[in-house]
Amino acid sequence: MFNKISIIGCGLIGSSILRAIRKNKISKSIQVYDKSKEVNSFLKEEKFHEYILNDISLVAKNTDLIIIAAPLSSYKEIFLSIKDHINKKTIITDTGSVKGETNKIVEGFNLKNVSWIASHPIAGTEESGPKGGFAELFLNRWCIISPEENANKDDLEKVRKFWELLGSKTKIMSPSDHDYILSLTSHLPHAIAYNLVRSAVKSEDKFKDEVIKYSAGGLRDFTRIASSDPIMWRDIFIDNSENILKVLESFSNNLEEMRKAIEEKNSSKLIQIFSSTKNVRKEIVKAGQDTDKPDFGRKKS
Amino acid sequence: MFNKISIIGCGLIGSSILRAIRKNKISKSIQVYDKSKEVNSFLKEEKFHEYILNDISLVAKNTDLIIIAAPLSSYKEIFLSIKDHINKKTIITDTGSVKGETNKIVEGFNLKNVSWIASHPIAGTEESGPKGGFAELFLNRWCIISPEENANKDDLEKVRKFWELLGSKTKIMSPSDHDYILSLTSHLPHAIAYNLVRSAVKSEDKFKDEVIKYSAGGLRDFTRIASSDPIMWRDIFIDNSENILKVLESFSNNLEEMRKAIEEKNSSKLIQIFSSTKNVRKEIVKAGQDTDKPDFGRKKS
Repeated sequence: MFNKISIIGCGLIGSSILRAIRKNKISKSIQVYDKSKEVNSFLKEEKFHEYILNDISLVAKNTDLIIIAAPLSSYKEIFLSIKDHINKKTIITDTGSVKGETNKIVEGFNLKNVSWIASHPIAGTEESGPKGGFAELFLNRWCIISPEENANKDDLEKVRKFWELLGSKTKIMSPSDHDYILSLTSHLPHAIAYNLVRSAVKSEDKFKDEVIKYSAGGLRDFTRIASSDPIMWRDIFIDNSENILKVLESFSNNLEEMRKAIEEKNSSKLIQIFSSTKNVRKEIVKAGQDTDKPDFGRKKS
Repeated sequence: MFNKISIIGCGLIGSSILRAIRKNKISKSIQVYDKSKEVNSFLKEEKFHEYILNDISLVAKNTDLIIIAAPLSSYKEIFLSIKDHINKKTIITDTGSVKGETNKIVEGFNLKNVSWIASHPIAGTEESGPKGGFAELFLNRWCIISPEENANKDDLEKVRKFWELLGSKTKIMSPSDHDYILSLTSHLPHAIAYNLVRSAVKSEDKFKDEVIKYSAGGLRDFTRIASSDPIMWRDIFIDNSENILKVLESFSNNLEEMRKAIEEKNSSKLIQIFSSTKNVRKEIVKAGQDTDKPDFGRKKS
């Protein structure tokens, strides 16, 4: 379907795309560009040598599909570097976690004869960098595609097909719906997890070692997503700040209600709060979004 | 080591203790009492018939060790029911998640010739009831033992040995240290998880189904502990309210700092916040408290 796919950014996501394209033979040729020396050294060690580009301006040459898998804050610089080199009919997509701001940036470049069709694979782990990548990362996961209203329908189908070849289920969604839904499913949980972990584990607390040692009672679940890439999350919180501030306000109001119930030892209110969430996990398991094994199926020690 | 062990309350924890005692042949005889008809029916179906007691006053008869594995709010009633039937030299322990309040209740009964030595196995899953129990639940997990200052040393050793026979590592800790540490490692995370899930998943939100569908981006991690037993958690929040209110205040102050950084798009502050927690997970994995596999080692779909 593709003759040449170029990936800009080869961290966890970019390197997983590279691996998946190669494994599933989705494109005749593939090339990757990453500005980090460490990333390029790793790629060479792992025998990805033939795919590496040393100059970002070459990314666009004779390329059918460009995939940006770099931090949101680097998009402007990337488009500046490639905009004068893009062939007609090239499709550009991305893997970013916020869509509204990104679309504004890309529209600002007013690119002619280029199809910009934003994507967001809901896939990843707490690891970052190409070492953590693997070809099956997108298998059975959702990829949300958020085209602009005037996007070329054929190109949209190609992008959809691309993610399906990687094993993903796809869903087309407006950028604003995407940014609202993700603020609830991903951005708020990350904000809260980071905040919880830094509130619970304080280096000046004389019980710090004990807090680590006995973290299996709940805290450890939060530390996974609170160890994600800081640059990526800084960018998300800046680009989707409007939605995130709104959901944080709702969270804080609910927390205050709970705090009062604890202070007043209001038994029935607490039961009501703790009962209200019981079925959500069942619905998530039913929707195929998590394992139904206790403890996430963590391997028994 | 024991001739007869009696367990009061046979849910997830009590039934796991029963299974572990039987499997590891820790006591010549075992008996369990649970006031719930459903629990007793389940136990009969699962061929635990011979262990079931129908009258709580019989629990104490000729028993070496009584283990209370029932909600904290039932302790008063339990002690009222058994106090006149306890043999001399019986040891009583429990599995409750709060120690300060419980010790006060037990001291209030002023039991003579009885060793009260509180325990708290840091073990459990998001399931509740005897169906979710299994003999290996305590294997390689911590059990904190929180004796009163004047506790009998030999009996303390027996309780410690008991948990070690179930496969646990043990740690002796004062009730007040226990309640502070657990407020950070377990009670605060549960408060936050319940609150996050009810803030993110609202039945009146037209995007509710989408929030469930795309929950793999972070939210689903929180739904596990937000589906724990409401009665158990109501009791914990009431009994350990003083510590919990203190840590909630610290959480809220940190959250306000983060909210401001988002509002001001303060890039360096956000990076600082998101970087501060990165090493905590490594420390938890190093302490043997979680798997180092990405995504908790969730089975690949």
